[in-house]
Amino acid sequence: MSSPRLQLKKNESRRLRGGHLWVFSNEIDTTVTDLKSLEPGESVEIVDERGKFIANGYANPHSLICARIVSRDPAHQLDRSLLVHRLNIALSLRERLFDKPYYRLVHGEGDALPGLVVDRFGDVAVVQITTAGMERVTADILEALNKVLRPSTIILRNDASLRQLEGLAYSVEVVQGEPPEGLVIEENGTRFLVDPIAGQKTGWFFDHRMNRCRMQDYVRERRVLDLFSYTGSWGVQAAVAGASDVMCVDASATALDMAYENAALNGQQERLALLEGDAFEALKALREERERFDVVILDPPAFIKRKKDAARGLEAYERINRMAMQVLAKDGILISASCSHHLQRDKLPDIMLKGARHIDREMQLLEEGHQGPDHPIHPAIPETRYIKCFTARILPAR
Amino acid sequence: MSSPRLQLKKNESRRLRGGHLWVFSNEIDTTVTDLKSLEPGESVEIVDERGKFIANGYANPHSLICARIVSRDPAHQLDRSLLVHRLNIALSLRERLFDKPYYRLVHGEGDALPGLVVDRFGDVAVVQITTAGMERVTADILEALNKVLRPSTIILRNDASLRQLEGLAYSVEVVQGEPPEGLVIEENGTRFLVDPIAGQKTGWFFDHRMNRCRMQDYVRERRVLDLFSYTGSWGVQAAVAGASDVMCVDASATALDMAYENAALNGQQERLALLEGDAFEALKALREERERFDVVILDPPAFIKRKKDAARGLEAYERINRMAMQVLAKDGILISASCSHHLQRDKLPDIMLKGARHIDREMQLLEEGHQGPDHPIHPAIPETRYIKCFTARILPAR
Repeated sequence: MSSPRLQLKKNESRRLRGGHLWVFSNEIDTTVTDLKSLEPGESVEIVDERGKFIANGYANPHSLICARIVSRDPAHQLDRSLLVHRLNIALSLRERLFDKPYYRLVHGEGDALPGLVVDRFGDVAVVQITTAGMERVTADILEALNKVLRPSTIILRNDASLRQLEGLAYSVEVVQGEPPEGLVIEENGTRFLVDPIAGQKTGWFFDHRMNRCRMQDYVRERRVLDLFSYTGSWGVQAAVAGASDVMCVDASATALDMAYENAALNGQQERLALLEGDAFEALKALREERERFDVVILDPPAFIKRKKDAARGLEAYERINRMAMQVLAKDGILISASCSHHLQRDKLPDIMLKGARHIDREMQLLEEGHQGPDHPIHPAIPETRYIKCFTARILPAR
Repeated sequence: MSSPRLQLKKNESRRLRGGHLWVFSNEIDTTVTDLKSLEPGESVEIVDERGKFIANGYANPHSLICARIVSRDPAHQLDRSLLVHRLNIALSLRERLFDKPYYRLVHGEGDALPGLVVDRFGDVAVVQITTAGMERVTADILEALNKVLRPSTIILRNDASLRQLEGLAYSVEVVQGEPPEGLVIEENGTRFLVDPIAGQKTGWFFDHRMNRCRMQDYVRERRVLDLFSYTGSWGVQAAVAGASDVMCVDASATALDMAYENAALNGQQERLALLEGDAFEALKALREERERFDVVILDPPAFIKRKKDAARGLEAYERINRMAMQVLAKDGILISASCSHHLQRDKLPDIMLKGARHIDREMQLLEEGHQGPDHPIHPAIPETRYIKCFTARILPAR
């Protein structure tokens, strides 16, 4: 049972040989490969312009990324056996690094499983599938997960917006076990309620784990403002780390309710203040009321979702960073993050510096943070490297 | 008593107004400023092409960096009072971040004190002066240190090679108190002997503190190779973190003796093996003997000290990273660092990936490390941002 061949144009194999896993549709030699005749998700053999084997992969004729590499070994296809093998390799890294079973178990391309994300919340596995090729092997994924991890509950969170690019429908389904209620995880010693069915993405953002860990050193006995707080991942950890008080700002009342529950779960509800509203407007109001904070945490949603939003998104990052500095105490700490892949890493400290100069303050850059090791980066695929988090001290002019 | 004026050429003030602290000699309008008539280290007023005040600073007509900014406030000169103020600001950050009194207290430009480095080892302060402007106020520095820190011992380690560029002589001197014997510091819970008089630089490299802290998660029950180990800052911490055994490689027998003493100080001497020799040759021999390690730590001295060494230095980084991978176990961890400012940050993971592809292995990038927060970065001066440390998992081809 051999797969159809996907033949590349001349000179288009170099990036793949350098380690990249994506084939773009304009790289295919359509005089010999009838891309449009392939089924979305169908297994393919990717070959160079002379027909020489490069890798096995899966295709999607409707997507700009028309194929993704699964293995460079001609003997390996994307099947249950390969999934079991890759899951074991992914699990061994996480078990080595984390004492408790709460982590991203599979990070797509970074774990050589393009189109698949699995977050582990103890006995609950939350699976996100974003490509037609992965969707085709859903049953194998579930079997492999049961062989490697034996979770009591598996939830398919197939509602990521990326699915649209692959022509996949949205759905959220408990495919094994009972829907979890009152599910609790632990991060850096703080406990959190997670809702893997109705929460954003898989219900928790593990990617900032290390940055939240480093944050703890800065907040002891200080007044903290957590903007775009969501369910309090930063704010509640700041309270547990000894902040004198924490104000969480979010536009969602549901998220703030959960932030309060999370604070209570850790005995910190008295240190938490909640402010429902838009972060920009909240900052304006706080400034007018002359409220000042020793530490401001700014972890907004992606302001640049697509490349064409870059200019407007950049302006939003500049504005929110400047406004955040305006409510900082005289010797204050700004922790500023971005999850926009389209915002270049080194651009964020520039934005922060510009904000500081605008209000005639000096800036020391103290920490540079990244996604945690359960979000491995594929070194040939810049898109897998997306989290930025900078900690700066903002001082009077000198 | 007004200072001589240093007038810039047209359009040369923008970088300084953006926050930079250095004035280059080719930026001076020598038709109105007689640069050569200034004393090395003399206080100057830096003005733009129209004579408008930019900042106070100090000059050195013999250096390419002919002046450094000390303050943008016309009322502030580099004197005892300013030094006390800046030291207090620097100390308050360190006291907030570190439980124990072992850290870099002053990081030159990053702490708005260009030309001055102070490392604190408890009651011992080690001072490095690298510019004529700082040298001129040596007595003020010592007084300010005594006012802010009251150390029992102050050592002037004025033997940094940078002094040559400023026409300063080399000397090492105990200027206050007794020469310390058996001085012990603690880093990430491990104790180390430090020799602030005969050791490299100030006797200890605090800059990798955070990276050594993250390293600990990777070494438990594993076999570790520490290349360019010096006195065991990485290797002994790996042993304390639970490595099954650690081999330290260094060209200096004195450094290895001290690594052994450090291991003994932490009760880990039985887990430490010492190999005296050149790291490249040691790697070749270890490979021939089919020795394999689960974790290889590669923190070499700067291979690119000056820009003109870039090509040869790059080749050395490529070779040592490739060779380090060749002694890694099948599923191994490479922790690869560089302190060369002239090696661009993103170049190091490229070098590592190239090494992995060369031996047909796959690489996952797990951690990206930087200098610790007691080495604050001046966001407008790229030269203050120099430490790079990447942790990668090296896997069989897949």
